[in-house]
Amino acid sequence: MTTTDEQYMQLALTNARAAKGQTAPNPLVGAVIVNHNEIVGIGAHLKAGEAHAEIHALRMAGEKARGSTVYVTLEPCAHTGKTGPCAQALIDANVKKVFVATRDPNRLVAGKGIHMLEQAGIEVNVGLCEQEAQQLNEVFNYAIVKHMPFVTLKAAMTLDGKISAYTADSQWITSEAARKDVHHLRHEHQAIAVGVGTVLKDNPSLTARIENGRHPLRIIVDSRLRTPLDAHVVCDGTAETWIFTASECDHKKKLALAAKKGVRIFHTTGGSEVNLRDMLHTLYESGITSLLLEAGGTLNAAFLNDSLVQKLIVYVAPKLIGGKNAPTFFEGAGLSAMSNAHALDMTAFEQIGPDLKITCYPT
Amino acid sequence: MTTTDEQYMQLALTNARAAKGQTAPNPLVGAVIVNHNEIVGIGAHLKAGEAHAEIHALRMAGEKARGSTVYVTLEPCAHTGKTGPCAQALIDANVKKVFVATRDPNRLVAGKGIHMLEQAGIEVNVGLCEQEAQQLNEVFNYAIVKHMPFVTLKAAMTLDGKISAYTADSQWITSEAARKDVHHLRHEHQAIAVGVGTVLKDNPSLTARIENGRHPLRIIVDSRLRTPLDAHVVCDGTAETWIFTASECDHKKKLALAAKKGVRIFHTTGGSEVNLRDMLHTLYESGITSLLLEAGGTLNAAFLNDSLVQKLIVYVAPKLIGGKNAPTFFEGAGLSAMSNAHALDMTAFEQIGPDLKITCYPT
Repeated sequence: MTTTDEQYMQLALTNARAAKGQTAPNPLVGAVIVNHNEIVGIGAHLKAGEAHAEIHALRMAGEKARGSTVYVTLEPCAHTGKTGPCAQALIDANVKKVFVATRDPNRLVAGKGIHMLEQAGIEVNVGLCEQEAQQLNEVFNYAIVKHMPFVTLKAAMTLDGKISAYTADSQWITSEAARKDVHHLRHEHQAIAVGVGTVLKDNPSLTARIENGRHPLRIIVDSRLRTPLDAHVVCDGTAETWIFTASECDHKKKLALAAKKGVRIFHTTGGSEVNLRDMLHTLYESGITSLLLEAGGTLNAAFLNDSLVQKLIVYVAPKLIGGKNAPTFFEGAGLSAMSNAHALDMTAFEQIGPDLKITCYPT
Repeated sequence: MTTTDEQYMQLALTNARAAKGQTAPNPLVGAVIVNHNEIVGIGAHLKAGEAHAEIHALRMAGEKARGSTVYVTLEPCAHTGKTGPCAQALIDANVKKVFVATRDPNRLVAGKGIHMLEQAGIEVNVGLCEQEAQQLNEVFNYAIVKHMPFVTLKAAMTLDGKISAYTADSQWITSEAARKDVHHLRHEHQAIAVGVGTVLKDNPSLTARIENGRHPLRIIVDSRLRTPLDAHVVCDGTAETWIFTASECDHKKKLALAAKKGVRIFHTTGGSEVNLRDMLHTLYESGITSLLLEAGGTLNAAFLNDSLVQKLIVYVAPKLIGGKNAPTFFEGAGLSAMSNAHALDMTAFEQIGPDLKITCYPT
């Protein structure tokens, strides 16, 4: 491995990253083919159902793939899915060496593509720029293993930890710049979830209000089907809204909600509260791999206590609202001892306007 | 003003800063004297009662002060205090020009030193490195005007805004590195204040546990004189403890507490709660200009709501404890509307071990 190898892999990562937001439910993948120190092929996976990164790069390289070195950000597939196995295509093209940044996250198939290449006499190097490659597909890597969407909890709070005043007033905690950043987050996620409490309190639209913003699917967690028939999320028709409920009781309300354009009602099993794992599995089966959780402290607590949150983005505004009864973003009963607190890795903090954006991962 | 002027003023600021922690109740001041592009004098105010910065620098310069340019971080005094007026000394030394970083914060005398110099035909330039010079003496500048100590509120919280679990367990929220940083804060402050609730809950020592640490005076806000007779702060004898109370009732308890070595009891006027302004004026009159507030959410609220906090240092730990009933650092009733929240300037954030340290000033 040389500096040059790393530069080629970085180029593959850059191309992979370029397709962010358009490959779901597939991962971001980039590939670069080099022969005699010249780049002869560049590829990226652009859309589910279309060619994989290696195939695009091999097509560009043509005959020059023979004897080449390939840099690919994810282990080439060994199975025939919507497209043929990429490992076989690399073998058929007579490439000499393959750098793989990261193995397939799916433990059932991990290593198979690498094994196939090695069996064909191709030299394989695994792990170049591995961390970057893994983070690039953190959503995909989690979803494919767990069969649930990768959940990012977003919260905006005052420096004293409140997500609203004791009166429930929360407009606005953060600056316009930070709120715009949230609209970008919405755009990047396939779905957004809130509890019915937020619908009743704020009547939000939950749309991505930025130029060319893609509106996420709206998920309402509503155990007793209290979403009003005139709520924006069921009336504005800007995006689909799926309501998850645990209740069978109010059949009439259910019919009325389900009659709204773009609204679907789902029942989860077992208990009077929405079963979140059930809900997440249902979403995954519908092709949803990324979910932005913009809920209040009670629903957040249900997600956090069941280890269903994979990432946290917390905006801290330089203001103080006070109040023993003002809510925080993680309520419920809470943990009893500081030594048992959920541990996080704080991986990034940046100033957005006057506010601070903190990114964390549970450890 | 040239780059060189700024460099000389920076040298004066560096020398001023060097005496941090040893000049109270006086401000930090530095001076540099330059003649024909050579530094001929350097001075700093080192201790209350001793020579001012300009005097030290003039003594070093001797005859070379004649026709020189002087860089001083604070307006030279025009009054005869423990030492003679520095403005007169500069005039007597026949200096040619004086750069003053910042005017005297005391509005009653501000400008008098400058006026005296100008009257004597000396060229005066005000405002070079002004912001740095002001921040250097933020404590002094506030205290001398308000006749109360500059109060820094310190809080340590989980990312979800809690200062303890619902059970009151708070050991430990932050890392050892962050806790050591707090001991440095204690060392730098003349006094530290907590409410009796903290004494009852944690029985803290409130000492600066670092090498050569100077223990601050310990202030307990205890309206009903509930401090236990066996509390560390009244028994360990490591530092003085002043208890402020609003109660006259338990005379026997008062006598028992007052009998402890280093313990004094103060009564504030008006009402069943300690009058914080009274308390702060009493502290100022005793020479205390800096106070570190390490209290819980109720006492913090009383300080914040009365605009008695001049700076906040908040340590945020990468962990989540949860709990609707877990306390935050600013409780009380709270403000009702986000638009009325106390606004802050977030001036610094730095990572200390795994934790984040945020520094803010009320605006």
